Amino acid sequence: MAMGWFYLSFYSLWFLGLMCIILTIYWMHLWHGGFAWDGTILMFNYHPVLMVVGLVVLYSAASLVYRLPQSWAGPKLPWKIGHAALHLLAFILTVLGLVAVFQFHRHSKVANLYSLHSWLGIVTVFLFACQWFLGFAVFLLPWASMWLRSLLKPIHFFFGVIILSLSVASVISGINEKLFFSLKNATQLYSSLPSEAVFANSLGMLVVLFGLLVFYILLVSSWKRPEPGILTEGQPLLPDGE
Amino acid sequence: MAMGWFYLSFYSLWFLGLMCIILTIYWMHLWHGGFAWDGTILMFNYHPVLMVVGLVVLYSAASLVYRLPQSWAGPKLPWKIGHAALHLLAFILTVLGLVAVFQFHRHSKVANLYSLHSWLGIVTVFLFACQWFLGFAVFLLPWASMWLRSLLKPIHFFFGVIILSLSVASVISGINEKLFFSLKNATQLYSSLPSEAVFANSLGMLVVLFGLLVFYILLVSSWKRPEPGILTEGQPLLPDGE
Repeated sequence: MAMGWFYLSFYSLWFLGLMCIILTIYWMHLWHGGFAWDGTILMFNYHPVLMVVGLVVLYSAASLVYRLPQSWAGPKLPWKIGHAALHLLAFILTVLGLVAVFQFHRHSKVANLYSLHSWLGIVTVFLFACQWFLGFAVFLLPWASMWLRSLLKPIHFFFGVIILSLSVASVISGINEKLFFSLKNATQLYSSLPSEAVFANSLGMLVVLFGLLVFYILLVSSWKRPEPGILTEGQPLLPDGE
Repeated sequence: MAMGWFYLSFYSLWFLGLMCIILTIYWMHLWHGGFAWDGTILMFNYHPVLMVVGLVVLYSAASLVYRLPQSWAGPKLPWKIGHAALHLLAFILTVLGLVAVFQFHRHSKVANLYSLHSWLGIVTVFLFACQWFLGFAVFLLPWASMWLRSLLKPIHFFFGVIILSLSVASVISGINEKLFFSLKNATQLYSSLPSEAVFANSLGMLVVLFGLLVFYILLVSSWKRPEPGILTEGQPLLPDGE
C-alpha cells in the first residue's frame, strides 16, 4: 500500500470537508445575515450549514472509519461503536437542520415539502434513519448470527454509498433552489452571475468533489480492514466487463 | 445465480427507464406545449427529454451491456463495440440536448451556464466525453497492453458510476429549477403543489429509483462476465469493515 497516496487522499478529504463547512457558514453569514434560532430567515440559515456538516461531511467521516489503518488490527467493537456514534451525531445534526427549515416555514407560513429538493432530502433522511437502526440492531447488538451479518453487510454498504449520493444530490438542488430564491430582483439576477452566485455554485461543486473523493476511498481503494480468514488484499471493486 | 432475480431486476429496469422517458415527454407535451426545433421555448422542451433519454437511460443501458448473460461467453469484441456504440449514441443525444437549451437561450437572450444545475451538467457531459474517448483509445483500439487495460479498468468503471451519479443529480436539480421557473404566478405557485409539481417531482423520484437500480446491478450483483484466469464468482463489491 502506498502510504503517501493514502495520506494525500485523507488530508485532501479533511481539507475539502472543512472548506465545504466554512464556505457554507461564510455564505449564510455574509450574504444572508448570519444565524439565530428564532423561526425567522436567520433560523433557515442553519439549514444548509447543518445539512452540509451532518449529512455530507460528518456522515462521510463516520462511513470512512474502517478505512483508517488504526482500525485494521485489534478488537473491532470500539471501531463499530465509533462508527455508530459518529453516524448518530451526523443524524442528530441532520434532524436539527430539518427543524431549522420547518420552524422557519411555520413562522413564515410557507408550505413544507413541496419542492423536488425537499422530497429527495426527506427520503434521504428517512433512508439514513432506517440504515442507522438496521446497522445498530444487526451489527452492534449481539443477537445477530454471523450468517445474517454477512448477508446484510453488502446491503448496508450499498445503502451507505447510496445515502451519500442522495445527500449530495439534495445539497446541489438545495443550493440551486436557494440561489433562485435570493437572486431574483433585476439588479441581482442569478443569470447575471453576481458574486453570491459564483461563490455558492463553487461551493456546490466543492461538495461534489468531496463526495467523489469519499466514493473513491469507499469503492476503489484497498484500504480496508482485513476480514479474519478471508483474503481481502487486492480485492477492491473490480469490474469484469470493460 | 438466481435467474428469477436477474430477470426481475432487468425487466424492472426496462419498465422504469421507459416510464422516465414517457413521463418526461408527457410533462413537456401536456404542460409546456410540446416540441419544435425552432429556438423558442418549444425547443427547450427537447432538453429534459434528450437528457433523460441520453444521459440517464441510454447511458445506463450501455453501461450494463456486460451484465447480460449473453455477453459472458464467446468473443468479447462484439460486446465492446456494442458498449462503445451505445455510449456514443447516448453522448450524441446528450449533445443534442445541450444544443436545444443553448439555442433557446440564444434565441431568447438568456445567459448560458449560470446556475449550479448547468455547471454540474456541463462538467458531467465533459467527463462523459473524456470517459468515452479514453475508453475507445484504451479498450477498443488494439495498441494498449493488457497491463495498461488492467490498470485503467477500475478507473473506467469508477468514472462510469460517477458520471451516472452526476447525471441523476443534474436531472434532479434541473427538474427542480424548471418547476420554479414555470410555477411562479400566484395561482400556480410551486409551493401550492399543483398537478404539474406533483407529476414532475414524481418523475424526479422515478429517475432516482432508476439510478439506484442501475447502481445495484453495477455494484452489488454478481452478474458479470468471468475474466479468463481470474475467479470472479462471488466477488461482488464486498466491504470489509461494517
